Amino acid sequence: MIVVKVGGGKGIDYEPVCQDMAHLMQANQPVILVHGGSHETNVMSEKLGVPPRFVTSVSGYTSRYTNRETLEVFAMVYAGKVNKLLVERLQQLGVNAVGLSGLDGRLLEGKRKDAIRIVENGRKLVLRDDYTGTVDKVNVALLRLLLGGGYLPVIAPLAISTESEAINVDGDRAAAAIAVALAASHLIILSNVPGLLREFPDESSLIRHIPKDHVEEYMGFAEGRMKKKVMGATEALTQGVGQVVFADARVPSPIRAALEGAGTVIN
Amino acid sequence: MIVVKVGGGKGIDYEPVCQDMAHLMQANQPVILVHGGSHETNVMSEKLGVPPRFVTSVSGYTSRYTNRETLEVFAMVYAGKVNKLLVERLQQLGVNAVGLSGLDGRLLEGKRKDAIRIVENGRKLVLRDDYTGTVDKVNVALLRLLLGGGYLPVIAPLAISTESEAINVDGDRAAAAIAVALAASHLIILSNVPGLLREFPDESSLIRHIPKDHVEEYMGFAEGRMKKKVMGATEALTQGVGQVVFADARVPSPIRAALEGAGTVIN
Repeated sequence: MIVVKVGGGKGIDYEPVCQDMAHLMQANQPVILVHGGSHETNVMSEKLGVPPRFVTSVSGYTSRYTNRETLEVFAMVYAGKVNKLLVERLQQLGVNAVGLSGLDGRLLEGKRKDAIRIVENGRKLVLRDDYTGTVDKVNVALLRLLLGGGYLPVIAPLAISTESEAINVDGDRAAAAIAVALAASHLIILSNVPGLLREFPDESSLIRHIPKDHVEEYMGFAEGRMKKKVMGATEALTQGVGQVVFADARVPSPIRAALEGAGTVIN
Repeated sequence: MIVVKVGGGKGIDYEPVCQDMAHLMQANQPVILVHGGSHETNVMSEKLGVPPRFVTSVSGYTSRYTNRETLEVFAMVYAGKVNKLLVERLQQLGVNAVGLSGLDGRLLEGKRKDAIRIVENGRKLVLRDDYTGTVDKVNVALLRLLLGGGYLPVIAPLAISTESEAINVDGDRAAAAIAVALAASHLIILSNVPGLLREFPDESSLIRHIPKDHVEEYMGFAEGRMKKKVMGATEALTQGVGQVVFADARVPSPIRAALEGAGTVIN
């Protein structure tokens, strides 16, 4: 089982990812696709007059501040636009894709954070109307039902809280949770960087290999969005996923390249 | 099997529909929900600067003109917002809902109209960039897979064309196609009118019963959106669905009321 996460950063073209997914399906390789939608959500939020706000937690992680209004924009873009256009394109390529969000059948369930502690302009603040959380449980039965029926699950990283509220969850960590739940051999995280860089943003400083017992030591090299990817990788590897690869979504055949050793390979 | 379609017209509150769905599920009554989203799509289209345009075909049917840009707004609102918020609410009520669009797993497949002939300001026009079509095939296997797993399918009426393009299809006729495919005993079509009215918009002129062999004779009473409902009813009844009810979504327990004889009952 291979779990692929493709980011939704600026400049990412889903076409080569979809083509690689089609090749994997033709080779009878079971695979699951988790997608982002960040840039598109920013664009739509601006158009709708609710500009995106990113907050940095006291522990240094950046995330999208998601009140109920923002959550609905997030759901529209991730579950409505990005998810369905991916399904359409995969169907055109002969892949019987089924798009789901983590709300559907409680596919991704977790705790909503009751408060997030952030730092803004040097001041500490507590936000209480944030609809974000973590994935603590994956409905493996639903995934297996669909995989068994010959479908490719395409998953938008919304989740459902223990109290059944829709929440925004990090896509990389959601993909990691899915990879763990399915005991995947590979978790491939594609984004608009070539992998983990020793000297961000110098792309020639790519770290090509990390021994899996040493991932956390590399956290210091992770900037911005990469921190959650390293966290997801750690979560996946300590819970049995064979190999995690951070690789570039912007190259031809990005999944094949990642499987052949491109990017940062952690095993 | 009961198939319920709830419209997305102005003034419709999904809450009583969701509560009735929960009661049906508790009573082990298999059920499928198809939803609208028309009003919300109009609101969102205005906000996004692509105001809705409704066209009237030469045969007198009104439909939403859907070019590719509009289709993406349609997908966001129907499959992203309305669908996922319904799933969230149903989950809160203990119903294990799974939201899908007709694109997913080719759930609803049909022909895209290559051209629509319309009348505008008395002139006949042909539109060729319209992404609308009909539902000719329902993926019953996918519905049965989900129903068998204990899930309630919640369906947004987008479909996939024979050439694998996303298309906008009429929700009432999509619900009729699903009811036929599942040999449903009941198709309940809820909207913001009490049923078919003899003298539209006089709600006291409700037609309470139509013998199923005479539905087409009543087409003359149908105004605007009601025409597609009558067409859907005809399609459902001639292909084996036991009973079709047009009923009011705006009352308490709208599904129970419809099952108990409220609205226009056709059998």
